[in-house]
Amino acid sequence: MATGSGEPRIIVDAMGGDHAPDAIIEGAVQATIAGYRVVLVGHESVIRAGLARHDGAVAKSVEVIDAPEFVAMDEHAAQAVRAKRGASINVAMRAMKEGRGDAVFSAGNSGAVMASALFTLGRLEGVRRPPIAAVLPVQGSQLVICDTGANVDCEADHLIQFAYLGSRYSERMYGVAAPRIGLVSNGEEESKGNALVLAVHPRLAASSLNFVGNVEGRDLPFGKCDVAVCDGFTGNLILKLAEGMASFCFGLVRQVVMSRPHYKLAGAVLRPGLRSVSRGLDYTEHGGAPLLGVNGNVFIGHGSSNAKAVLSAIRIASRAVRADLLPEMQDAVRQSLVAAN
Amino acid sequence: MATGSGEPRIIVDAMGGDHAPDAIIEGAVQATIAGYRVVLVGHESVIRAGLARHDGAVAKSVEVIDAPEFVAMDEHAAQAVRAKRGASINVAMRAMKEGRGDAVFSAGNSGAVMASALFTLGRLEGVRRPPIAAVLPVQGSQLVICDTGANVDCEADHLIQFAYLGSRYSERMYGVAAPRIGLVSNGEEESKGNALVLAVHPRLAASSLNFVGNVEGRDLPFGKCDVAVCDGFTGNLILKLAEGMASFCFGLVRQVVMSRPHYKLAGAVLRPGLRSVSRGLDYTEHGGAPLLGVNGNVFIGHGSSNAKAVLSAIRIASRAVRADLLPEMQDAVRQSLVAAN
Repeated sequence: MATGSGEPRIIVDAMGGDHAPDAIIEGAVQATIAGYRVVLVGHESVIRAGLARHDGAVAKSVEVIDAPEFVAMDEHAAQAVRAKRGASINVAMRAMKEGRGDAVFSAGNSGAVMASALFTLGRLEGVRRPPIAAVLPVQGSQLVICDTGANVDCEADHLIQFAYLGSRYSERMYGVAAPRIGLVSNGEEESKGNALVLAVHPRLAASSLNFVGNVEGRDLPFGKCDVAVCDGFTGNLILKLAEGMASFCFGLVRQVVMSRPHYKLAGAVLRPGLRSVSRGLDYTEHGGAPLLGVNGNVFIGHGSSNAKAVLSAIRIASRAVRADLLPEMQDAVRQSLVAAN
Repeated sequence: MATGSGEPRIIVDAMGGDHAPDAIIEGAVQATIAGYRVVLVGHESVIRAGLARHDGAVAKSVEVIDAPEFVAMDEHAAQAVRAKRGASINVAMRAMKEGRGDAVFSAGNSGAVMASALFTLGRLEGVRRPPIAAVLPVQGSQLVICDTGANVDCEADHLIQFAYLGSRYSERMYGVAAPRIGLVSNGEEESKGNALVLAVHPRLAASSLNFVGNVEGRDLPFGKCDVAVCDGFTGNLILKLAEGMASFCFGLVRQVVMSRPHYKLAGAVLRPGLRSVSRGLDYTEHGGAPLLGVNGNVFIGHGSSNAKAVLSAIRIASRAVRADLLPEMQDAVRQSLVAAN
């Protein structure tokens, strides 16, 4: 670790996200109070002003690195990252590379986070396409979905690597022994799938991974696998549709409760229980998905991240550093290359 | 229509589905009681024995056509359809072609239904790839998803045609004026999407359809569009994941209710309201998705269709016949070809 002993230092892009910088600063302050070490990167005067609204001792313990520019949410990611050397995300990546922190988190333009990570940190040796591995809360566990958006068009080789990276991530971060790897498809039978899935299936079946076969959409919420392997287009759809459906269903329950006076009373009784399950499905409790396969710990947040999501992301990033994730990922890549040959 | 005046005759494959023939016969009887005309196709003796368990007058008004063979759920679809000329699904398609009915419904091997429809009925003129257009109940409306599994690997031309067919289907079957067409993608911006989506977007934007742009997974449950256009791999995932998430979320609510004595009491009060919303999301209430673009009214059901799903499918198929769907589909295909040139 760059920090030597002690709590990992998480570099946070203060300028990235729909609610930046306020929600990001607020999340950084909450994390600091919770005992995490945070480095904020962005317009120093704006960050200092934001921190000044909080308790003096806490504010002082948040380190700040100035960055004169930032990449907006709707900018062309790769171009902006190249053109704006002083953008907060670039400054954050360089700060990590120079050993001023152990992980980077940004809720900003995710294309820009990926581009900046690739340009500044590069890939681990042998990595084809770094995937994003977001986590979906499912029945009794955390489902790692790999990829959830970094690579919308994929080849079989890419998915094989996603499977190895996702498997090791599930193992090291969630303590799952021999994670069950599922291949997202339109049917359980090995004959089902699009051309990509049909090419990947026999290779996963022959791999050293604990491959449990194809998984269908209807099985994903029920914990039939620990890691769902798919291209980034598919994974992004799964993540967002699951989020949308959960919000839709709990919204329907709320409508029922509000529709009659005696339902309102019953709803008031059930509220604590319902709130706890709907909170379990809340993405802000699971903020921060790793970009796996780059040469550094990089975590990407929901554009709409609030302070709670920032706090969760800092917690996850700290855990990744403590789990010494990078050498694990390098080893997983090596295994995937053996499997490919 | 082949029947001339009166109630459309719906030909039902009695041998297709996980719960065939009992659930199919039961659904046919319920539909007959509800005033629909049903023709059952399959092993005549088995069907007659099944019907004999029901009221004599009802049983007599169900027509039966004998078919000596059937395609099993796990058989290779195209091969079985070619090899077994006397399979119930083939006999059903031929009966429709000969004017003995106006629509075919099967909950059997969906690959076999498609293959039999293509071999026996053929495509409407100009159709590239017939899609399945299943319906997902969403906030305040019915979302038509096209394709939901007939074509897992697609080209841009196919999706353009899915959009035209789906639009007209939404208009004629659900009374939506100028249906809003959404293109399923990993972001709302037109720059987001995989190679297929990027190729389709500008063509839909330039089409005569009411194209509302890309739709993300999280927007699908909230009625942002009336028709979601995608390849069959993606559409199948949407349909099944939405079903799985609804079942997961209502299962969590049930777990909360059962977890404490006073929650159980409150749950008993809310039960009628909750049951009504969860029933609204139940696929058995929306059984039967059309295979659009073949030269006949063909409806495909969930393999696990129960009697209620069969009844819904017969209802939908009858409505399609009454709406004179086939010439509408032919006209939609013509428009799609104009758009393509």
